[in-house]
Amino acid sequence: MIIIMSQSATREDIDNVEKKLSEYGFKTHPIYGEVKTVIGAIGDKRLLNMESLITMPGVENIVPIMKPYKLASREFKQVPTIIEVGDARIGSEEIVVMAGPCAVEDETSFLEIAIKVREAGAKILRGGAFKPRTSPYSFQGLEEEGLKIMAHAREVTGLKLVTEVVDTRDVELVAKYTDIIQIGARNMQNFRLLQEAGMSGKPVLLKRGLAATIEEWLMAAEYIVSSGNSNVILCERGIRTYENATRNTLDLSAIPVVKELSIFR
Amino acid sequence: MIIIMSQSATREDIDNVEKKLSEYGFKTHPIYGEVKTVIGAIGDKRLLNMESLITMPGVENIVPIMKPYKLASREFKQVPTIIEVGDARIGSEEIVVMAGPCAVEDETSFLEIAIKVREAGAKILRGGAFKPRTSPYSFQGLEEEGLKIMAHAREVTGLKLVTEVVDTRDVELVAKYTDIIQIGARNMQNFRLLQEAGMSGKPVLLKRGLAATIEEWLMAAEYIVSSGNSNVILCERGIRTYENATRNTLDLSAIPVVKELSIFR
Amino acid sequence: MIIIMSQSATREDIDNVEKKLSEYGFKTHPIYGEVKTVIGAIGDKRLLNMESLITMPGVENIVPIMKPYKLASREFKQVPTIIEVGDARIGSEEIVVMAGPCAVEDETSFLEIAIKVREAGAKILRGGAFKPRTSPYSFQGLEEEGLKIMAHAREVTGLKLVTEVVDTRDVELVAKYTDIIQIGARNMQNFRLLQEAGMSGKPVLLKRGLAATIEEWLMAAEYIVSSGNSNVILCERGIRTYENATRNTLDLSAIPVVKELSIFR
Amino acid sequence: MIIIMSQSATREDIDNVEKKLSEYGFKTHPIYGEVKTVIGAIGDKRLLNMESLITMPGVENIVPIMKPYKLASREFKQVPTIIEVGDARIGSEEIVVMAGPCAVEDETSFLEIAIKVREAGAKILRGGAFKPRTSPYSFQGLEEEGLKIMAHAREVTGLKLVTEVVDTRDVELVAKYTDIIQIGARNMQNFRLLQEAGMSGKPVLLKRGLAATIEEWLMAAEYIVSSGNSNVILCERGIRTYENATRNTLDLSAIPVVKELSIFR
Repeated sequence: MIIIMSQSATREDIDNVEKKLSEYGFKTHPIYGEVKTVIGAIGDKRLLNMESLITMPGVENIVPIMKPYKLASREFKQVPTIIEVGDARIGSEEIVVMAGPCAVEDETSFLEIAIKVREAGAKILRGGAFKPRTSPYSFQGLEEEGLKIMAHAREVTGLKLVTEVVDTRDVELVAKYTDIIQIGARNMQNFRLLQEAGMSGKPVLLKRGLAATIEEWLMAAEYIVSSGNSNVILCERGIRTYENATRNTLDLSAIPVVKELSIFR
Repeated sequence: MIIIMSQSATREDIDNVEKKLSEYGFKTHPIYGEVKTVIGAIGDKRLLNMESLITMPGVENIVPIMKPYKLASREFKQVPTIIEVGDARIGSEEIVVMAGPCAVEDETSFLEIAIKVREAGAKILRGGAFKPRTSPYSFQGLEEEGLKIMAHAREVTGLKLVTEVVDTRDVELVAKYTDIIQIGARNMQNFRLLQEAGMSGKPVLLKRGLAATIEEWLMAAEYIVSSGNSNVILCERGIRTYENATRNTLDLSAIPVVKELSIFR
Repeated sequence: MIIIMSQSATREDIDNVEKKLSEYGFKTHPIYGEVKTVIGAIGDKRLLNMESLITMPGVENIVPIMKPYKLASREFKQVPTIIEVGDARIGSEEIVVMAGPCAVEDETSFLEIAIKVREAGAKILRGGAFKPRTSPYSFQGLEEEGLKIMAHAREVTGLKLVTEVVDTRDVELVAKYTDIIQIGARNMQNFRLLQEAGMSGKPVLLKRGLAATIEEWLMAAEYIVSSGNSNVILCERGIRTYENATRNTLDLSAIPVVKELSIFR
Repeated sequence: MIIIMSQSATREDIDNVEKKLSEYGFKTHPIYGEVKTVIGAIGDKRLLNMESLITMPGVENIVPIMKPYKLASREFKQVPTIIEVGDARIGSEEIVVMAGPCAVEDETSFLEIAIKVREAGAKILRGGAFKPRTSPYSFQGLEEEGLKIMAHAREVTGLKLVTEVVDTRDVELVAKYTDIIQIGARNMQNFRLLQEAGMSGKPVLLKRGLAATIEEWLMAAEYIVSSGNSNVILCERGIRTYENATRNTLDLSAIPVVKELSIFR
């Protein structure tokens, strides 16, 4: 990382920063500009309490050099992930379509939709049995009953399933029925849920949070990967902006950025 | 609510919308403008599937008239909430200060801080035992050990406690130690956690989500209130904007808005 | 428009609003709900001082029914605009590519680029002679010298020209050389410049402002159209959001929205 | 500045970047990390075409060290600006209130307001003679007639004047009547207008753009200062965010940031 010292930093300030960095095993490389000094520091950032560094006298700013996500990063693993679910190869050249209704409402209508979804060429059937609703008065999903309906539709159609989980206590139950676990946008930084989903062993479809940066999204993926599960599917679903002519603003450019930065497709 | 029909809507479209609304017990009041027709509809919106209404031919837009939150709304309850925690009266004219470190790190340092916090005039001691960290590699908190340290500091200083819970499975444990349960910004729409926190019986400090509208924030509060607990403390902690000279943008104007709209202070 | 009265509005408040609306020639249609009253009002909003209406006792909110842009709206004109520039038909099924460097730097390099642009299939050559630079210390463009270089490249390649104007005083000069006048994102609400560009008679390429809503963008187009020039080309160039992994966030969904709402393609 | 080389950068890439920097008079200081190399570069950035640098093979990112604004920066001038307008000292400890209506509508009402404004303790009278309206159909201001009414109110009340200018062609006229020239939010990056306002010799009140970063705002101020006029008054008027319960989001924290970074108060 690079520590930028303020213009008013004294020689003593600079020495103190170097000393502190040395104590934590960093090698330091000061560069004295005409107006400001910057200090390059090589070492393991995880050992360091960054807040105690940035509040030292004379420190203006700290610029990280390495990405904060490790296992998810193309810097550490060159080959992108391909996830096989049934005969779908997610992350390969193939475009895998996942479709279905927002919520599972009843067996008959869900089956009817499932058949149309298969006819339309999708390979994965989506449906919500646990729904994260903005209002406590809205229908919250059929829960296990909904999962059973989905499993039945899988039997009938041969489609694989993706469904959302919203509570750490339900991960085991949901994993029993589904082929892919979905983490919704509102739970993208529900870190305990990410870990539980990761430990389930099932592929995890991770929706981007409403106002999540690409870096935060990849850090959320890192939680899953660091639980021992690299089968993460990133889902760009639009972000929140000032524009409300549309419900969300699809951040199309995020897709090539994510492909360049991470092992995910 | 008001249904705005598009300019190209036919007489038949208008009749169909009125018919559908009548079926659900609404009284309708069409207003025929020179270019467009609007339909006023009086009834209980919860009985209606709004999506099936907005997708009817000729419907351009639907404008709600009533606020979506009920129990939390000044429309339904005139008297604002005052929450007593020890001798602090949160929501009264008194300014109650809550202070303390981000994470509880160890007993000695925490106690030292607690004493200073009390000397500085605060009545509530804050500290994190469960930390929602962006990185899986950062310190995640001392968990129950941290809660014990906090409880000890309460004994010594007489300060009351506020601490965060991040998992439904920990609510009972946290409630055993703390005086106020904190829901962090990242979990503002973790609806299961809101319900569990509500059911704990403890006052709940609800931080505004990173990109939450005031309406969503009040809907989150509604989850807690509808669990039978109206002791909600709203915490404006800044929102995410394009500006990154500061970490968050404090939305100061949200405070009078919330006071006008809701029973919370 | 619809006037929503607050829950605490008295009968007298409602009467006063109706009376005021009548004075301005509106026909009013009150709808008395169980909790709130709304008033439908039919008439010409332009005659009314909206601020004096919204500040009347008991008024909670006003919901407009008609779009604020008139000439630019699909509500008023069904046939979308097609603009002919040379043999390019902008707004037709044809994809017309406009390409070229940010700034015109010198004749030789610009001509070289122009030839490559034509070879690559573009029909319009872009280049900046007046540059709106964030820093006063950056190169501000070759001004008329740059326009002459562009005109020479048009002669050599047969490509048509698009270039930006940043000052009302330069519109005449720029219009003398270019085939399409460009209004940059930073000047989207420089209303005087919009009017001057409109009056030049040249087609106007109107870039969306950094943080402009679709409605504001169409209102800016309305300024040009109301100057007697309906040859407006809308350019979605990305909006400002909290995400800074990319310079702007391309709002792809704005394109179908604009096509539905306006006469522009 | 600091050039961060990507992980895949070769030794040759690094040498080429160093060579290029040397050609432009920079002294370079490479730091070889275990995974990546960074190059510290000391010299005058204005001599360099940054785009040609960032597109060189192996370059991942460039981090500037010095602020892009010079004359406006506390890095270059320690003493903050105090602007005297009549007996008001803007930028001193005194809170100077500026008040008045949005638009000047007629002499009688404006004079009446002016007297109340003075009684309420304000020292500067605000009013719009040229209004930047979102809609071409709204009242655009009384223009010179409005300026005359303002000047008359100054005579009567002794208050000083601030009024907006929206077109380079009107700066001279507006400067003839007003004591402070206002640049509105929509014109914050109308760089020609900034220069003309700067050259008028009058103090300039510069409103922050709707979606302007603090850095862009200070760069806009730099345009004025570099025109030879350091009497700039920065006006935080709220920024555009996703929240629309309020018209703008007041960015209160911007004020201490600006005070720390710039010579303005």
